[in-house]
Amino acid sequence: PDGDAIAAAEARNGQLTKPPGALGRLEDLAIWMGGWQGTDKPHADAPQVLIFAGNHGVTAQGVSAFPAEVTAQMVLNFQAGGAAINQLSNLFGARMDVHALDLDRPTGDFTQGPAMDEAEFLMAFLAGWDAVDPGADVLVTGEMGIGNTTSAAAIAYSHYRGAAETWVGRGTGVDDAGVQNKTRVVEEAARLHAFPTGLEALRCLGGRELAAMAGAIARARTLRIPVILDGFICTAAAACLAAEHPGALDHCVAGHMSEEPGHAKLLQELGKEPLLRLGMRLGEGSGAALAIGVLKGAAACQSGMATFAEAGVSDG
Amino acid sequence: PDGDAIAAAEARNGQLTKPPGALGRLEDLAIWMGGWQGTDKPHADAPQVLIFAGNHGVTAQGVSAFPAEVTAQMVLNFQAGGAAINQLSNLFGARMDVHALDLDRPTGDFTQGPAMDEAEFLMAFLAGWDAVDPGADVLVTGEMGIGNTTSAAAIAYSHYRGAAETWVGRGTGVDDAGVQNKTRVVEEAARLHAFPTGLEALRCLGGRELAAMAGAIARARTLRIPVILDGFICTAAAACLAAEHPGALDHCVAGHMSEEPGHAKLLQELGKEPLLRLGMRLGEGSGAALAIGVLKGAAACQSGMATFAEAGVSDG
Repeated sequence: PDGDAIAAAEARNGQLTKPPGALGRLEDLAIWMGGWQGTDKPHADAPQVLIFAGNHGVTAQGVSAFPAEVTAQMVLNFQAGGAAINQLSNLFGARMDVHALDLDRPTGDFTQGPAMDEAEFLMAFLAGWDAVDPGADVLVTGEMGIGNTTSAAAIAYSHYRGAAETWVGRGTGVDDAGVQNKTRVVEEAARLHAFPTGLEALRCLGGRELAAMAGAIARARTLRIPVILDGFICTAAAACLAAEHPGALDHCVAGHMSEEPGHAKLLQELGKEPLLRLGMRLGEGSGAALAIGVLKGAAACQSGMATFAEAGVSDG
Repeated sequence: PDGDAIAAAEARNGQLTKPPGALGRLEDLAIWMGGWQGTDKPHADAPQVLIFAGNHGVTAQGVSAFPAEVTAQMVLNFQAGGAAINQLSNLFGARMDVHALDLDRPTGDFTQGPAMDEAEFLMAFLAGWDAVDPGADVLVTGEMGIGNTTSAAAIAYSHYRGAAETWVGRGTGVDDAGVQNKTRVVEEAARLHAFPTGLEALRCLGGRELAAMAGAIARARTLRIPVILDGFICTAAAACLAAEHPGALDHCVAGHMSEEPGHAKLLQELGKEPLLRLGMRLGEGSGAALAIGVLKGAAACQSGMATFAEAGVSDG
C-alpha cells in the first residue's frame, strides 16, 4: 500500500464534520482502501464480482446433499441472472463474470490422490489471475462447486490441524451422518497427502474454483485492488496464499462471517474481523457482495463529507 | 402486518435457487418486509431518511464536549450536503429531509423541570408524524442535538433502572469527569420526574428531535412502512412507544449497534438484534442508513431470484 496516501487519508479523515472516530470501522476501511488505491478519497464505484465454478471428484464419497449436476445448472442460472449473486451484483453496480472451469472434467477424488496435477492446478490458478479486470476498484471472488465445503475443510485442517470435525459443517445441508462422513474424508485426505500447506494444499485438496480464487486474489494485489473475501471456501483458498507469504492478504477484508462453523476459526487464524454477520451460508460470493455496500458507505463518507472548515462547524 | 403476504413470501422463499435458509437473516428480513408492505416481493426502492434537530436546555449542566451552536451548524451542513448522512442517503438513493425544531428555543433543563410542556411535546411529535412520506417503502429516522445522549440515557434509566452509569457514555467525546457529571444529571432528572415511562418520559426527559422520531415511527406503522432504527438516541425514543404498547416496534428493525454503551442494553430490553456492528457512534441516522443496503439486498434476492423450476436446477 501507499504510505503517503494512507497519511493523506488519515489527515482528511481527521478534518471531516464528525467527532473523531465516530464512524467507527468505516474510517479504518476508508483509510485502508485509500492506501491500496493510492488516494485520500477512496472509491468503490467499479466493483467486480468473479464467480468460479468447479466440479469435485470427492463427491464420489457422498459428501454433499445436492447432486454434482447442480454445479452446471447453477452456472446457467448465473448466466441467466437468476441467482442471489446476480441480484446483489446488480444492486451495487458490480460487473459480474462467471467462469466455469472444466465442469465435465471433475478434479480427482482427493481421498485417492491429488485433486489436480501441477499443470491442471496452474491452469486453474491462471484462470483466476487473468479474470481480474484491471479497471475494477474493488474485487469479490465467489464460487460454486458441489462438494467444495469438504475441500475447504480439508485445506483448513491440513494448515491448522486441531480436531478435524471442528472444520466440518453441513455445507448445503447434510445430516449428522453426512457430517461424520465428511469428517472421515477430511482426515483421510490430509493424512494421505501428509498435511500439505500453501499452494500444495490447494493443488492436492482444492478444486479448480478454489485455485482460481487464489489466483484472482493474488492478481488483485499486484493491481492494488482491495478484495472482499467471501465465506469458508473463499477464505480457505485465500489462507493458502497467506501460508506462502505472511501479509499476502493485507489487501483483503473479510466480508461476512458464514454460518459454516469452520469459517470463524479460519478468520481467527488469519486475524480478519468480518464486516457482516447475517447467518448466510450460500457461497457464490454473496456475503462479500453484500459487504460492497459497507465499502461504498466508507468511501462515500471519506470522499464526500465536508471538512469543519468547509462547513463552518465548530470542532469541539 | 399482512398474514397472507407473509405466507406468500415464505412460500416464494422456499422455491428460490438456494439451499433452505442459506441466505440467513436476509430471508427473515425479506419476509418481514413483505408482511408490512403486503407483498411476496418486498422492495426498498424509495427509502426516506428523516433527520430531526433539537436543542437541549440540559446542556447548561455541561454534558457535552461540543457547544450547543453545533446543532444549528450541522443543520446547515445537512442542507449543504456535507454530512455523513448526506453521503449515505445519496449512496442508497434515499430521499433525505431535515427538520430543525425550534433550535432557538431549547427544551427546558430537565434537571429543573420537564423538558417540554404538553403543547410543545405534541408539536414535536406531530412534526415527526407529518414528515413521513406515504410513498416511502423504508424509513430511517435520525437526529442531531448537542446534549441528546444525556436525554436518551435519562429515558432509558427511567424505564429500565439498573445503575444509572450503565446507561451513560461519552457521547461526542466527554472525558471521565464528563461521564460522572452526565450520570449525576441522569439520576437527578429521573428522580425529579418520578421515573416517568412512555410518552411522559419523552416529554419530561426527551428533546424535540426524540419526540419527532417517535412520531415518525408511529406514523410509519399506520402506513405499514418498515423502519430501520438508528443508534442509542433513536432507540430510546422508540422505547417510549414500546412502553405504551407492546408490539409498537414490530415494524422496526435495529440497523446498527452503536458504540454508545447504553445501546446494547436498550436493544436487549426491546428484543432487537442489530443488523450491523461497525463501531459507529455518530447519530444522524447514519448507522440505520448504512443498513438500507442490507434491506435492499434482502429485497433484491427475495424478489429477483429465479425459482428451482424457472432455472431448471435440481432442488436436492
